Amino acid sequence: MAGSTLGTLFTVTTWGESHGPALGAVVDGCPAGLPLCEEDIQRYLDRRKPGQGKFTTARREGDRAQILSGVFDGKTTGTPISILIKNEDQRSRDYSSIKDCCRPGHADYTFDRKYGIRDYRGGGRSSGRETAGRVAAGAVAAKLLAELGIHFTAYTKAIGDISIPDGAYDFSQITENPLYMPSRSHAEEAAAFLEDCIRRQDSAGGVVECRIDGLPAGIGEPVFHKLDAALAGAVMSIGAVKGVEIGDGFGAARSFGSRNNDPFYADESGVHKRTNHAGGTLGGISDGSAVILRAAVKPTPSISREQDTVDREGNNLKISIQGRHDPVIVPRAVVVVEAMAALTVADLLMIRMSSRLSDIKAFYSGR
Amino acid sequence: MAGSTLGTLFTVTTWGESHGPALGAVVDGCPAGLPLCEEDIQRYLDRRKPGQGKFTTARREGDRAQILSGVFDGKTTGTPISILIKNEDQRSRDYSSIKDCCRPGHADYTFDRKYGIRDYRGGGRSSGRETAGRVAAGAVAAKLLAELGIHFTAYTKAIGDISIPDGAYDFSQITENPLYMPSRSHAEEAAAFLEDCIRRQDSAGGVVECRIDGLPAGIGEPVFHKLDAALAGAVMSIGAVKGVEIGDGFGAARSFGSRNNDPFYADESGVHKRTNHAGGTLGGISDGSAVILRAAVKPTPSISREQDTVDREGNNLKISIQGRHDPVIVPRAVVVVEAMAALTVADLLMIRMSSRLSDIKAFYSGR
Amino acid sequence: MAGSTLGTLFTVTTWGESHGPALGAVVDGCPAGLPLCEEDIQRYLDRRKPGQGKFTTARREGDRAQILSGVFDGKTTGTPISILIKNEDQRSRDYSSIKDCCRPGHADYTFDRKYGIRDYRGGGRSSGRETAGRVAAGAVAAKLLAELGIHFTAYTKAIGDISIPDGAYDFSQITENPLYMPSRSHAEEAAAFLEDCIRRQDSAGGVVECRIDGLPAGIGEPVFHKLDAALAGAVMSIGAVKGVEIGDGFGAARSFGSRNNDPFYADESGVHKRTNHAGGTLGGISDGSAVILRAAVKPTPSISREQDTVDREGNNLKISIQGRHDPVIVPRAVVVVEAMAALTVADLLMIRMSSRLSDIKAFYSGR
Amino acid sequence: MAGSTLGTLFTVTTWGESHGPALGAVVDGCPAGLPLCEEDIQRYLDRRKPGQGKFTTARREGDRAQILSGVFDGKTTGTPISILIKNEDQRSRDYSSIKDCCRPGHADYTFDRKYGIRDYRGGGRSSGRETAGRVAAGAVAAKLLAELGIHFTAYTKAIGDISIPDGAYDFSQITENPLYMPSRSHAEEAAAFLEDCIRRQDSAGGVVECRIDGLPAGIGEPVFHKLDAALAGAVMSIGAVKGVEIGDGFGAARSFGSRNNDPFYADESGVHKRTNHAGGTLGGISDGSAVILRAAVKPTPSISREQDTVDREGNNLKISIQGRHDPVIVPRAVVVVEAMAALTVADLLMIRMSSRLSDIKAFYSGR
Repeated sequence: MAGSTLGTLFTVTTWGESHGPALGAVVDGCPAGLPLCEEDIQRYLDRRKPGQGKFTTARREGDRAQILSGVFDGKTTGTPISILIKNEDQRSRDYSSIKDCCRPGHADYTFDRKYGIRDYRGGGRSSGRETAGRVAAGAVAAKLLAELGIHFTAYTKAIGDISIPDGAYDFSQITENPLYMPSRSHAEEAAAFLEDCIRRQDSAGGVVECRIDGLPAGIGEPVFHKLDAALAGAVMSIGAVKGVEIGDGFGAARSFGSRNNDPFYADESGVHKRTNHAGGTLGGISDGSAVILRAAVKPTPSISREQDTVDREGNNLKISIQGRHDPVIVPRAVVVVEAMAALTVADLLMIRMSSRLSDIKAFYSGR
Repeated sequence: MAGSTLGTLFTVTTWGESHGPALGAVVDGCPAGLPLCEEDIQRYLDRRKPGQGKFTTARREGDRAQILSGVFDGKTTGTPISILIKNEDQRSRDYSSIKDCCRPGHADYTFDRKYGIRDYRGGGRSSGRETAGRVAAGAVAAKLLAELGIHFTAYTKAIGDISIPDGAYDFSQITENPLYMPSRSHAEEAAAFLEDCIRRQDSAGGVVECRIDGLPAGIGEPVFHKLDAALAGAVMSIGAVKGVEIGDGFGAARSFGSRNNDPFYADESGVHKRTNHAGGTLGGISDGSAVILRAAVKPTPSISREQDTVDREGNNLKISIQGRHDPVIVPRAVVVVEAMAALTVADLLMIRMSSRLSDIKAFYSGR
Repeated sequence: MAGSTLGTLFTVTTWGESHGPALGAVVDGCPAGLPLCEEDIQRYLDRRKPGQGKFTTARREGDRAQILSGVFDGKTTGTPISILIKNEDQRSRDYSSIKDCCRPGHADYTFDRKYGIRDYRGGGRSSGRETAGRVAAGAVAAKLLAELGIHFTAYTKAIGDISIPDGAYDFSQITENPLYMPSRSHAEEAAAFLEDCIRRQDSAGGVVECRIDGLPAGIGEPVFHKLDAALAGAVMSIGAVKGVEIGDGFGAARSFGSRNNDPFYADESGVHKRTNHAGGTLGGISDGSAVILRAAVKPTPSISREQDTVDREGNNLKISIQGRHDPVIVPRAVVVVEAMAALTVADLLMIRMSSRLSDIKAFYSGR
Repeated sequence: MAGSTLGTLFTVTTWGESHGPALGAVVDGCPAGLPLCEEDIQRYLDRRKPGQGKFTTARREGDRAQILSGVFDGKTTGTPISILIKNEDQRSRDYSSIKDCCRPGHADYTFDRKYGIRDYRGGGRSSGRETAGRVAAGAVAAKLLAELGIHFTAYTKAIGDISIPDGAYDFSQITENPLYMPSRSHAEEAAAFLEDCIRRQDSAGGVVECRIDGLPAGIGEPVFHKLDAALAGAVMSIGAVKGVEIGDGFGAARSFGSRNNDPFYADESGVHKRTNHAGGTLGGISDGSAVILRAAVKPTPSISREQDTVDREGNNLKISIQGRHDPVIVPRAVVVVEAMAALTVADLLMIRMSSRLSDIKAFYSGR
């Protein structure tokens, strides 16, 4: 499969470069009858918008989503939904300093090695700006899933070493601070830490956590397209993500079977688990409890501090990346992680409908 | 895509249950002309064989791989390679105790919820035994990649809290201890720890690390089928894996841009990186340095200690899982992680051949 | 996608060469709960069995299908169904005459050009014997569809110039003659014609028609995976097929809009069409009437008459293909066409379940 | 796979409805370094433009293609190429007559049955206008293939019963008549025939033929993704196509092995075939001779003559479709067939590069 399409039944194809005329996404396989308008997408896009505070870049992208197809009379029709986002802030700049230079931590070098040519303006296709298409598509998936009672809560769990312990979450705080942290005190501590990063012309990373509530049991396809495998692949495809965990993740590797196993119990409302170390999947299939995943986000590679690097001719040189850059991209990555999770779940949810003959019979009976 | 097939050009489809007559794999898209014999596959399979020491189960699987197609006169022909492994140790047992019971940490409950029916003998399709098919297929991928100078080194980095620091590796030790740890002292410490687990009727987890050397730059397809994304999805599809990292992984989230960026430098032999925090990928494309990935493996869910659970009718009950079980599955997972990495790399390596028009022109010139 | 897998949700992967130890198929994505036994598959396989009369080869393949996975207690479990067919009649023959020779009308030359190596024994992978795997898999699809009231009727419409007009079908005759023709008189005429072919050391072709009854409206995915497009691709993938038609096919090209359009009418039982020139699809989606498709099957390329050809070194030579060969393969292709149609329909039928939000809501309500 | 994407390595995703704001295509997997500009696409689009003569509709679509991504400094970069075509002629019309009515021969009924909702304006997604996206994408594929010496010649072989015999082609005539027929006399005869159709308020069909020259041997993936199978699936996905043939097609079914087999011969320039009944493929793999395919195109379903039909409530009624309609769509389908063939060949050509280990080794040697 060419690299810019994800999914089997509910698919997304993104396109576009950082400084081209526009970028966008095509969502195919969205079921017919979903109420959808541009505002639904806009609300999602606004969450990744830069220029919202001192920790994100001043570039004002606007990022107005236009729906060009697939919606009629306010509802999806089952045909591809094409979403266009114009790149409005395309100031003609001087790119001569980065044109032939491989910025450390960026994909300049590898794109050159792979393609022999690249759109060097602002990172081109490898820019974080590509995620705007993902987020627009994720908004459609999230709208669909909300209709089914499936909800996503994503937030910043950690910035650098400042990590909110599992028991200390206050979800009402997420939208109260620019870092999307579910803890006021940790958000304040992280803000001070980032101020210091800026002073030192440096950048920081962090951890995004995403929680999926309301997911029915039975989602995920053994053996290669398990729910956790699909989530891991989708979330790791975000440029800055270097690690993914489900449930206790690497903590499980240090646990014991007697503690890590989640005991089942039954009451009048059904079967439940006493704990959720597994993070909502068993054998890669959702078990009806909340799905918990985490993504490690690396520090912003663009820093104004001087770095060693090479140019395309293989000359050694020094670079210090000009312009204002986010000292941390974690807050902007929050909605991207959520979008990737929503796209993954929407796809597997539709695939799961044909797992049993009895369900297929019931579906086609009388049609 | 149905769940049991992975890959685009170089694909694997696995089939089979733990206690059915056989299990196997079909590798399709393997290029013609690769020398291949059953011994190549056997050597790989033997690395996941149980019954090799006190930390793995006594069941003697034998696991003789037969090649049924795709090889002629000792070489692959470009047609599907079907590999069959008979289940020899199918003692007729009494499964009445687990037939209707949902073992904690296992997929019994979710398979029931998804399919309404399951082969309860030894876990059926969700058994770790399914990985025999992956390993057999991975042997083919690894053989192919070895021809291109690409080599895999996988090992146990940690058992429980006993973790080998990056600087303390002695790769010559990997095959010298039953835990496949590249450090004699850590292997001894881990052995003692596991003895204690057995005494306590408990189990432990750990971390597998895999290193890929010799991979050319340019492998990985932006934006969704990046090398790291594909590796993460493939490795997370192993049943017991709960987390995946590339390079510094979650450590990168606690680092700074100035430290996490790998500076480039050039000398007469080409362009290199001074460090490799990125783990061999930039923008999801291989950069020519070693690829490093880690997988968190959870503790064996089968423990003889008594646990709370439910049966299929929703009655609460106690279960203690009889028979001898591995106190840790990490050592057996080492070759599985390696196999998944090899399958992923083989696929992306073939896809990458068509990235540039100039390469395509050179290929077809004169044909 | 590697070439040996077909389908999205309901998939088949075939493997095996004509004279290797075995061949087979893996069906993945078959829903759980379908009653299935080896006899279900055997009945289908027997329909393509050679050695049933004077117009098919004397080789006695036996073709006993074994189910190795995916079925438990007589029902499918939702996991991959692996079907194995041993090649029992592997007499050690002398292949020196065809080893280096490119038989006209066969794939020897193109496999050599593509792969540089080929299993020359009996055509290897390009042998018609590969279709045994397709037929075994098709039996599973047909069994599934029969549970939903969808039935296939395939037969020989024409042998050479002897074609049964649409109005002259007597379906009860299909199993009464070795040519599977739904007309006794045409079958007799065709038999005499084939006798003459044998005398002239020549071979003939013909047309297979397949009719699908009971298919609900709404099956087929616009725009590239339409029902007719998927059927055409699947049926054309049979080695000997050179043309595919839906409904009036090439006849429609000579018709007029006023005649080719099928008028709708409604009565108390619903909406119907007065005619069915379209062959059951409109815009590539099933319309609830019978689907009609036809496949043009070329004359058997293996003839004992002397032919001009070349060897692998590019020397011109004469070849006359020894051994007994079918003077016509159309009767054996009947069940292969049916199998490909069943596999295609099963896949699209499952995909269609997620076309509407209201259906998805109903499905997940209460789960 | 969701229905609007085609291909494995070289993929196209189309989107858009007849009367929405725009439609378009995303081409992913196009190799880097291909010179490409909007004019390359425009030239192709102009060939399907209506309003060019009395046999095509008066609607003036303009159809200006814009490239929004994937091209930099006049060359492709290897990233997705997004092509946008605005729908300029969106007069606000009165659709009340067709809103609830199922036009015979159209997809209104089946879209309703599948999705429960449809964009009824001008056919929405099922309109022939959707093919503009295919043609735009096909222009990219054709440009790529031209760089490799692979050329397409598509034309109208027949209108109704007026068919040009194989020996009577004059390719220089194709662009000299509005029907794209390679024979002046047949074009004149067909024009008179179509005048008569218009007078009778009726429409006609025909046959498009496409010839591919310069294709190297070895293209096509056994067994399901053969070159002929992929071409058949792609061409049958065009809404109006009801049949597809390769080489002699249905004629082969009436031939004999001795005549239908193409004898090989060798001379100093290599191996050739004396005839090309096979149409350039053997075993589904290109054999180095010209590929010949034909598509049967049905008569335009929109006719002003009165027809019986039903509305969405199941009431019987009469409809006569107003406005000016093409009496034949065959000439406009010519470039669509060519586009589908080019997209298919581009994809299989890239897949084929990894068929042999020796080729892969040569490719990676020194990288």
